[in-house]
Amino acid sequence: MSRTRSGTGAIQPVTELFGTDLKVVNIGLKSFADNLTAEGVEAVHLSWKPPAGGDPGMIDLLDRLAAQRVVDIDAANRKAVERILKGKPTLVDVGTAGEVIPGMTERTILHAGPPISWERMCGPVRGAVIGGMIYEGLAKSVEEAEELIASGAIQFDSCHHHDAVGPMAGVVTSSMPVWVLENATYGNRAYTTFNEGLGRVLRYGAFSEEVIRRLKWIETVLAPIMRRALELHGPLDIKNIIAQILQMGDEGHNRNRAGTSLIIREFAPCLVRLGESGERIAEVLEFLNSNDHFFLNLSMPACKCTADAARDIEGSSVIIAMARNGTEFGIQISGLGDRWFTGPASMVEGLYLPGYGPDDAAPDLGDSVITETTGIGGFAMAAAPAIVQFVGGEPEEAIEVTRRMYEITLAENDVYRIPALGFRGTPTAIDLRKVVETGVLPAINTGIAHKEAGVGQIGAGLVKPPESCFREALQAFGERYAPSGR
Amino acid sequence: MSRTRSGTGAIQPVTELFGTDLKVVNIGLKSFADNLTAEGVEAVHLSWKPPAGGDPGMIDLLDRLAAQRVVDIDAANRKAVERILKGKPTLVDVGTAGEVIPGMTERTILHAGPPISWERMCGPVRGAVIGGMIYEGLAKSVEEAEELIASGAIQFDSCHHHDAVGPMAGVVTSSMPVWVLENATYGNRAYTTFNEGLGRVLRYGAFSEEVIRRLKWIETVLAPIMRRALELHGPLDIKNIIAQILQMGDEGHNRNRAGTSLIIREFAPCLVRLGESGERIAEVLEFLNSNDHFFLNLSMPACKCTADAARDIEGSSVIIAMARNGTEFGIQISGLGDRWFTGPASMVEGLYLPGYGPDDAAPDLGDSVITETTGIGGFAMAAAPAIVQFVGGEPEEAIEVTRRMYEITLAENDVYRIPALGFRGTPTAIDLRKVVETGVLPAINTGIAHKEAGVGQIGAGLVKPPESCFREALQAFGERYAPSGR
Repeated sequence: MSRTRSGTGAIQPVTELFGTDLKVVNIGLKSFADNLTAEGVEAVHLSWKPPAGGDPGMIDLLDRLAAQRVVDIDAANRKAVERILKGKPTLVDVGTAGEVIPGMTERTILHAGPPISWERMCGPVRGAVIGGMIYEGLAKSVEEAEELIASGAIQFDSCHHHDAVGPMAGVVTSSMPVWVLENATYGNRAYTTFNEGLGRVLRYGAFSEEVIRRLKWIETVLAPIMRRALELHGPLDIKNIIAQILQMGDEGHNRNRAGTSLIIREFAPCLVRLGESGERIAEVLEFLNSNDHFFLNLSMPACKCTADAARDIEGSSVIIAMARNGTEFGIQISGLGDRWFTGPASMVEGLYLPGYGPDDAAPDLGDSVITETTGIGGFAMAAAPAIVQFVGGEPEEAIEVTRRMYEITLAENDVYRIPALGFRGTPTAIDLRKVVETGVLPAINTGIAHKEAGVGQIGAGLVKPPESCFREALQAFGERYAPSGR
Repeated sequence: MSRTRSGTGAIQPVTELFGTDLKVVNIGLKSFADNLTAEGVEAVHLSWKPPAGGDPGMIDLLDRLAAQRVVDIDAANRKAVERILKGKPTLVDVGTAGEVIPGMTERTILHAGPPISWERMCGPVRGAVIGGMIYEGLAKSVEEAEELIASGAIQFDSCHHHDAVGPMAGVVTSSMPVWVLENATYGNRAYTTFNEGLGRVLRYGAFSEEVIRRLKWIETVLAPIMRRALELHGPLDIKNIIAQILQMGDEGHNRNRAGTSLIIREFAPCLVRLGESGERIAEVLEFLNSNDHFFLNLSMPACKCTADAARDIEGSSVIIAMARNGTEFGIQISGLGDRWFTGPASMVEGLYLPGYGPDDAAPDLGDSVITETTGIGGFAMAAAPAIVQFVGGEPEEAIEVTRRMYEITLAENDVYRIPALGFRGTPTAIDLRKVVETGVLPAINTGIAHKEAGVGQIGAGLVKPPESCFREALQAFGERYAPSGR
């Protein structure tokens, strides 16, 4: 492009072609500017991409949405932002899933991500389902479990349909203890099971005897003790804890060491006042101390009950759920009710534990992306520079990831602040329109599960959701609020 | 300078004077370059200051030190650096000052900073001395204490002379429990009392009944329990904890929230296994949870026993102690034995608690600057951006403060790393020569004490030590290693 052929067939420098000094502003493909620079022509490159990657259908849709007078989308989004910012997630109780989660039965099994049938579930989710059934006494073996599932006796459903969220496979069965969080401002609740620690655990699809034994210990020892400690302590403001951990190197998704530490110091005095044996309480404290992701299962329902308060706002294009079941990545939009828009789950780019590689990995999995939905996790990576070592990057990348998220969000959190960005608030309230228009996809930190049931975590990294689900959602949003027939 | 008078008396632009386009490199005073820029002359400003602020005596001294062949200063400093980097501060015991600190008697009172007589002590140190005497039963009132002091019955000495360090007033008396840290690599030990919390506390010169009661509780309840918990736990690697807290927003001097949290979660299981009543252990855990500076009194002796291993290296210009008694700031140099070089204690620039201002402040006080001496605290401010809010600055300033410290240090710590600087090691081993040559003074974070005994902390901020003590030390270093007569 920078050279052009003269009539003689020889290559003529672009400078000669115009017979004067050129000063060029290059828009779009950078290589055009590079060619000019190489020939000594002054060229300023303007990084620009056509909206929606130049997709005429999407551009038309965005134009129609901007022009329509059916609903005031910006006003609806302001309402959604207000609800997210004013949310006050508070830990209020510990309960049993079957008793506290709406719509649970003894044969209900909740899983992470958008709804999915047994047939289409990935390895780790199948493993966790089988483990959950063994844990519940619904089956004694893989074969028994598979038979019962085939008989149609098990009701599978998405955690999100029951005010719940679960990390990785996200399997919740009726006997499992759950944290009960309440959004103190709006009264809605959210539920998550207890974090089991690292290694071979149900959420990564493991269901060995050791896994089931640990789940039983959580049910019979840990949860009742934490419940009583919480009663003694009184409700705990999780929003305040999240605000603090962002000043302490955590982002609340892949790094939760500060959060776990703060939870331990908050509860330790109450734990020792329960009158239990020292050995029993020591066991509990050692479990917490050995598990730096203990806080993840509190940050997740905190984000869930925060985001849920912004559901069902007529005309709002704010994304109020993102979730993965290991087969599909799905999103829900405030103004479009409970409908899911899904695309194929992506592979995670990151670092693997020794002995594992990309070929062993299950696709992106889990409800923990509720943290990103509410503006922490990958969106707050700049607050957790140490995390980039774990996921294979440089501290500058952590800052860059967060900066990009401001392009697709509507607000900055007034409580969650990032020291490395001059205490700027975390990017909050993802606008579906902005995602499609800019092509900037939400940044997600995540663990990597082995693709086969029962193996466990094999790495961690960053993942980009499939662009298609955002476009489909915008299509539906356009049909709902700016139908082309009008 | 940028304009010059022509023969006619009119002002002639500098561009006309030279009759050609000027391209200027300006060295030194920036205003020369500014004037040229204002006239449209291209001027690059090179920030340069003459060495040692242009002081001919100091320049001569630095030259003589560079030229002398008496001792290989660089080799001596490499040895000092190695000793600092290889140090492994480990919490090994809890003891009673009178029993474990070398040279303590029942009538010894240690204080922070270089040695100072009662007559020259500042308000908070006097208050803490009186409080210490009441705590020991040596006096029942201020009057009795002053009488006993006047009689010469009390032996005052610097903490540093007894392998100890104390925050603020730094008063240590014989009955006080102390943390015992051992440098596992070199075997030397360091001692610090337990942190009392905030508000009215002995280290800020308060000595009310409440202060004495708390000290007695520390002696009779907290310390014996922590001693037994430590026995159960086994030695605790404090270097590892400091490495972690630098990834969690602490710098180990003015911010210790992560450090305190990690100590709590480390000891909580052992505490509940002691067989003590739940109420007693709860009391201990609540005290720890209420006091985010609890870890300061572990980071200080950790730094002390690390720095002490680099003492008395013939020819080394590394600063191995900095300390303030509220009247004077003093330093010690590895190659100059136990000699102190002092200058007047500076006033702290920072933020004050409501109702207080600079007029109420005592000058810079305490041994906590041992953290900066060993490369954390102010030297690691970039790791604790949240701290700048507390001391009244911007996050960029925190990074800038740390960056400047690389100019006066000899090494980067291989274990203490700063995420915001791409995990660069903290600036370690201050070279006296570099301080004098560059005029860059060690950056210190610190609390501000009220100038009168008994009031307590009234603020926090940044302080620069007096330049004079570094110059005096270099003078002595020159006399010792490059005498002018040779």
